[in-house]
Amino acid sequence: MSKKKAAILGATGAAGQQFVEALKDHPWFEIAGLYASERSEGKPYGVAAKWFTSSPLQEDIAAMTVGNVEKAIHDVDQYDLFFSALPSGLSKEVEGLFAEHKPVISTASGYRYEDDVPILVPEVNAPHSELIKIQQEKRGWKGFVVPGPNCTTMGLIISLKPIYEKFGVKSVFMTSMQALSGAGYPGHSSLDIVDNMIPFIAKEEGKVVIETVKTLGAYDQGSIQNAGFPVSCTCTRVAVIDGHMLSIFVQTEKPCTPDDLKAAFVEFNDSCRKEFGDLPSSPKDAIVVKNEENRPQPRLDREIGDGMSTVVGRIRQDEVYGQHGIKYVALSHNTKRGAAKGELMAAEYLMTQGYF
Amino acid sequence: MSKKKAAILGATGAAGQQFVEALKDHPWFEIAGLYASERSEGKPYGVAAKWFTSSPLQEDIAAMTVGNVEKAIHDVDQYDLFFSALPSGLSKEVEGLFAEHKPVISTASGYRYEDDVPILVPEVNAPHSELIKIQQEKRGWKGFVVPGPNCTTMGLIISLKPIYEKFGVKSVFMTSMQALSGAGYPGHSSLDIVDNMIPFIAKEEGKVVIETVKTLGAYDQGSIQNAGFPVSCTCTRVAVIDGHMLSIFVQTEKPCTPDDLKAAFVEFNDSCRKEFGDLPSSPKDAIVVKNEENRPQPRLDREIGDGMSTVVGRIRQDEVYGQHGIKYVALSHNTKRGAAKGELMAAEYLMTQGYF
Amino acid sequence: MSKKKAAILGATGAAGQQFVEALKDHPWFEIAGLYASERSEGKPYGVAAKWFTSSPLQEDIAAMTVGNVEKAIHDVDQYDLFFSALPSGLSKEVEGLFAEHKPVISTASGYRYEDDVPILVPEVNAPHSELIKIQQEKRGWKGFVVPGPNCTTMGLIISLKPIYEKFGVKSVFMTSMQALSGAGYPGHSSLDIVDNMIPFIAKEEGKVVIETVKTLGAYDQGSIQNAGFPVSCTCTRVAVIDGHMLSIFVQTEKPCTPDDLKAAFVEFNDSCRKEFGDLPSSPKDAIVVKNEENRPQPRLDREIGDGMSTVVGRIRQDEVYGQHGIKYVALSHNTKRGAAKGELMAAEYLMTQGYF
Amino acid sequence: MSKKKAAILGATGAAGQQFVEALKDHPWFEIAGLYASERSEGKPYGVAAKWFTSSPLQEDIAAMTVGNVEKAIHDVDQYDLFFSALPSGLSKEVEGLFAEHKPVISTASGYRYEDDVPILVPEVNAPHSELIKIQQEKRGWKGFVVPGPNCTTMGLIISLKPIYEKFGVKSVFMTSMQALSGAGYPGHSSLDIVDNMIPFIAKEEGKVVIETVKTLGAYDQGSIQNAGFPVSCTCTRVAVIDGHMLSIFVQTEKPCTPDDLKAAFVEFNDSCRKEFGDLPSSPKDAIVVKNEENRPQPRLDREIGDGMSTVVGRIRQDEVYGQHGIKYVALSHNTKRGAAKGELMAAEYLMTQGYF
Repeated sequence: MSKKKAAILGATGAAGQQFVEALKDHPWFEIAGLYASERSEGKPYGVAAKWFTSSPLQEDIAAMTVGNVEKAIHDVDQYDLFFSALPSGLSKEVEGLFAEHKPVISTASGYRYEDDVPILVPEVNAPHSELIKIQQEKRGWKGFVVPGPNCTTMGLIISLKPIYEKFGVKSVFMTSMQALSGAGYPGHSSLDIVDNMIPFIAKEEGKVVIETVKTLGAYDQGSIQNAGFPVSCTCTRVAVIDGHMLSIFVQTEKPCTPDDLKAAFVEFNDSCRKEFGDLPSSPKDAIVVKNEENRPQPRLDREIGDGMSTVVGRIRQDEVYGQHGIKYVALSHNTKRGAAKGELMAAEYLMTQGYF
Repeated sequence: MSKKKAAILGATGAAGQQFVEALKDHPWFEIAGLYASERSEGKPYGVAAKWFTSSPLQEDIAAMTVGNVEKAIHDVDQYDLFFSALPSGLSKEVEGLFAEHKPVISTASGYRYEDDVPILVPEVNAPHSELIKIQQEKRGWKGFVVPGPNCTTMGLIISLKPIYEKFGVKSVFMTSMQALSGAGYPGHSSLDIVDNMIPFIAKEEGKVVIETVKTLGAYDQGSIQNAGFPVSCTCTRVAVIDGHMLSIFVQTEKPCTPDDLKAAFVEFNDSCRKEFGDLPSSPKDAIVVKNEENRPQPRLDREIGDGMSTVVGRIRQDEVYGQHGIKYVALSHNTKRGAAKGELMAAEYLMTQGYF
Repeated sequence: MSKKKAAILGATGAAGQQFVEALKDHPWFEIAGLYASERSEGKPYGVAAKWFTSSPLQEDIAAMTVGNVEKAIHDVDQYDLFFSALPSGLSKEVEGLFAEHKPVISTASGYRYEDDVPILVPEVNAPHSELIKIQQEKRGWKGFVVPGPNCTTMGLIISLKPIYEKFGVKSVFMTSMQALSGAGYPGHSSLDIVDNMIPFIAKEEGKVVIETVKTLGAYDQGSIQNAGFPVSCTCTRVAVIDGHMLSIFVQTEKPCTPDDLKAAFVEFNDSCRKEFGDLPSSPKDAIVVKNEENRPQPRLDREIGDGMSTVVGRIRQDEVYGQHGIKYVALSHNTKRGAAKGELMAAEYLMTQGYF
Repeated sequence: MSKKKAAILGATGAAGQQFVEALKDHPWFEIAGLYASERSEGKPYGVAAKWFTSSPLQEDIAAMTVGNVEKAIHDVDQYDLFFSALPSGLSKEVEGLFAEHKPVISTASGYRYEDDVPILVPEVNAPHSELIKIQQEKRGWKGFVVPGPNCTTMGLIISLKPIYEKFGVKSVFMTSMQALSGAGYPGHSSLDIVDNMIPFIAKEEGKVVIETVKTLGAYDQGSIQNAGFPVSCTCTRVAVIDGHMLSIFVQTEKPCTPDDLKAAFVEFNDSCRKEFGDLPSSPKDAIVVKNEENRPQPRLDREIGDGMSTVVGRIRQDEVYGQHGIKYVALSHNTKRGAAKGELMAAEYLMTQGYF
């Protein structure tokens, strides 16, 4: 099988660089085009992108010439699909232009809240991919747009999925302690984060609330019925490079003890392995439970499953709801699972379903 | 009025140093004795204590000779009261010996959970001081032990007090992001905290659960009736030197909007000012509300009210309970309000009530 | 004596805020005007300035209306002197306009390298103030411009001064480990500084090289003869909020042992106390020597002398030059001694010399 | 070729864990035994070692039973060689016992300063391995001890080697900014390193001074003639997890411009590749020069060459010595190149020379 040709839109920014890294040596997709703003046009990628991840940039990619994203539409036929790492403001307008012709897999939020657009996370809502046909019919597109969720939503919904399926969810309280890379580069000033933390992330909480119930909702006859429980959260920023930590309290419909939950996670992992285990970016375990009392920790655990596992710890019965309440912490790698690499896994899933 | 003579037990450790700092130029108490372990015996305090707060140690205190805490009981008549910063393990045994003779005000947890011992925070439960008489009768002591709460409990109960009084509390979910100084010195390894955080603090959550309902409980005919709501929390450690941040979700009995809460805080401050405004360590405002969306922040706000105010921000209606739910973040200076300086204010209150 | 009326140019930025803080309750000068860019015009200072130092802004200053620096020249007669915290790019042009009429004391680099402009640090080169007359004559100004040195140069020249005077200096090697606040706000990205350091600071090394020999030079008949030794340095940035640390190796002309150096520092302090001890911002000791092997440390020692002392430690004989080589580390508070408060002390000195 | 059986002494500590990691999938050596203190005896390695590097521990190694290092001598015949990560205090005594029988490659300092012991770094002093025979004769050992240098010395001597060879060295001034992992675990308290740095590392400077001239010395008729130049250094600790940064000033005998130095590095790399390129742990480039003005940086560059390259930047002519002075910064991965993986490369070299 020859590899599918992929172009990256918004290739020089933080999210774009993560697509470049995620696609390194990928067996199914190859980077065939790199597009960014006019400023980068005509420059070698290695010059246009201020590369700041710790694994060095491959030389062949560094030598590729960056194109202007505003003219990229002229090259649309050269590619099989597009990965979009565009800024949210641009994504709505630009991604639609490409979706007329080709599939667009996106980390941006522009289309997330449209009725005919799935926020696709294979382990959570693979059947939502059915919406793609609706989207194409309704909009007259040959391609489509499929975004992933916000990086904070990701760790929440993957860990909630087996709880929701098995025990039912009545309400969720969540406090996040998010990594600096989630704010892009340069993001926060160093003066705001040394000996400090910030109890606020613009627009984040609203995204989590909406995306959680949409992604956990049911696909039914052409639309998604949101999951029927409320979510309340407070999002904060701490002095960590990568890895969002979530402190989660769940009120369940049926009783759920810590042992019940661990068993549900094991079952969930088995099922994910069966359904998605052949996807190149799929981790061995969707959820890894740490039993040490002081884990997970971002620096030590974020790379588990090559940054694609959700790492859960501190599973305890809750004091408020008793056997109908469970609490735990979850760690999700925000620039891998919660961004480009997570979207890549969604693309891999769509590939197996014949969408490219 | 001549100053009361105070001795500090456990004077060389982190908590002891905070008593030394809090008592600097105090109008009512003077440091008349400093006691620590045998290792420090006979040394000048400036030599025995590895001083690590940023405000320099006073020269006259540095020159005082440190006594052995195991022999301190022989000097008991030289002092009017004792401030104890002993390790929790020692505090139960040692503080009792001194309390037979003199008042002991303590940051340690040894006596906190005894039925006849108040965990005293003037703004929260001044009437609990009535328990002192019960304690003296029951134990045959001329003195008494009065501890303060855990440093994490402090910010929670001060901010809950006006909610509990005015709207009633049905349940509380709390996630803390605590400062490094809360672990004492050396506390956490630097390798555990650079580019990292730790979602666990030994024994902390249990303390918060018990102390919250005890301190907010009602004194009634010689005993305390615990407040009747459950508390569920997850305590974490982040890379901040001083200042515990709490993310709090409260289910109330009566409706409570953000404006209602702000009004309740104003009223609470007025009442605290009236009752405790003359105590030297009392802050101008017990609770300071920050309206900027990204505050409070530890480095910028922990020193408000000389580290004695609880700084609240991000007051929002909650998605789960609607008008019966309120959420906010609270910042409390863990080595000032939550430790020695907080206990000092309790001692000041007891002074005005004639206990020394 | 009524206080001199001072206006601050560039009042809302980081350096401007430091002037506001340094002038708090000053016995000789009062803040009578605050000027910033057009964007801040007409706003209360508390709104226009994103205040980010940990000591809270005074309410009366917060209420002052900010003027437009471009129109400030019309108000020039209302003030006795100006403190300039303008960006370097603007300082050359703007400060000259004001200096036609009134004294301008500046933290900016615009005029530092002019032949007729002293870089004034009282303890180092008080006689350089003679240049002011030359400057006024040559330029036809009624006022004048007096800048201070770069914040990195400050700790170097204060610690070198007694060495230069007593032992002679043949060469200096210096590596700095500078604080984040030296880059202004927002300065470095948090992603560049967590688990990282940066071995480069734009233009800094050139400034240190030139300013060191100019400030230590001799005033002679209307001009300054630069000190005759070379300086070689490498400037780096580390994850510290405030306080520049310098690792210094000095080749001396005469033999200089560690004890010789300590004695020279004592003598220097005595002389500074005699000459400048009455200036309100003068520290008790110009140089504080720490004998503990692991000091000075920024967080523990930067506030010594209210941030105005240079704190020296690790004084050792050098392996390369033997008795003609001495090495040590020096810590200087970059936003106090090395910026506004340092300039304020220069202004105080000029006040005693009748310049305002 | 069957793999050589290696045992690790001191396997559970930080340095021991680094040997475990460095030996993962090694083509020439296999981990056949793991020994630690009595406390770990009989436990699975995964339980005995608090694993804290970010790449997860291999399951087969985790399952190996840890032996007691005090009894390990009874197993000496089961192994072909020993890697020692013992604490310095123990290393002198214990390593000698094993060296009677088998080769011991060590990160510890116990034997470094013995006349008949080479501090072996292949690129710097491969001929020093001749000393092994002398050592065996003199001591009557069948095995031998070969330690590597201190982790700070490593980056210095690799970058100095081509300068010394090509231009001659008259003196060196060096200031280090060292990573936290260099202090082992737990090492520094987090309270000492957040918003702080420490200008002192116990015993480090003396080691650098001695080891630099010994490793760069010439092997001549059974002994090493130390290199004939003085080294003066100041060692400091900064808030970085891994990667020691060195600010180096070199006075050369012959003129050396930045371009000369870059050319010398290229030549050196070629020569290293020819001589050592076949060693499994040898990096593609011994020295990588970064031309960006703000590099190298620890977080971005420490993994270059899988942590085995020395990364040099900021090459400039020096102001003190002119064309006879050169300055630069060098970054060396202290727990890879400067510890176990560096020693492993020495072992690989000795393997090619027939020593095992």
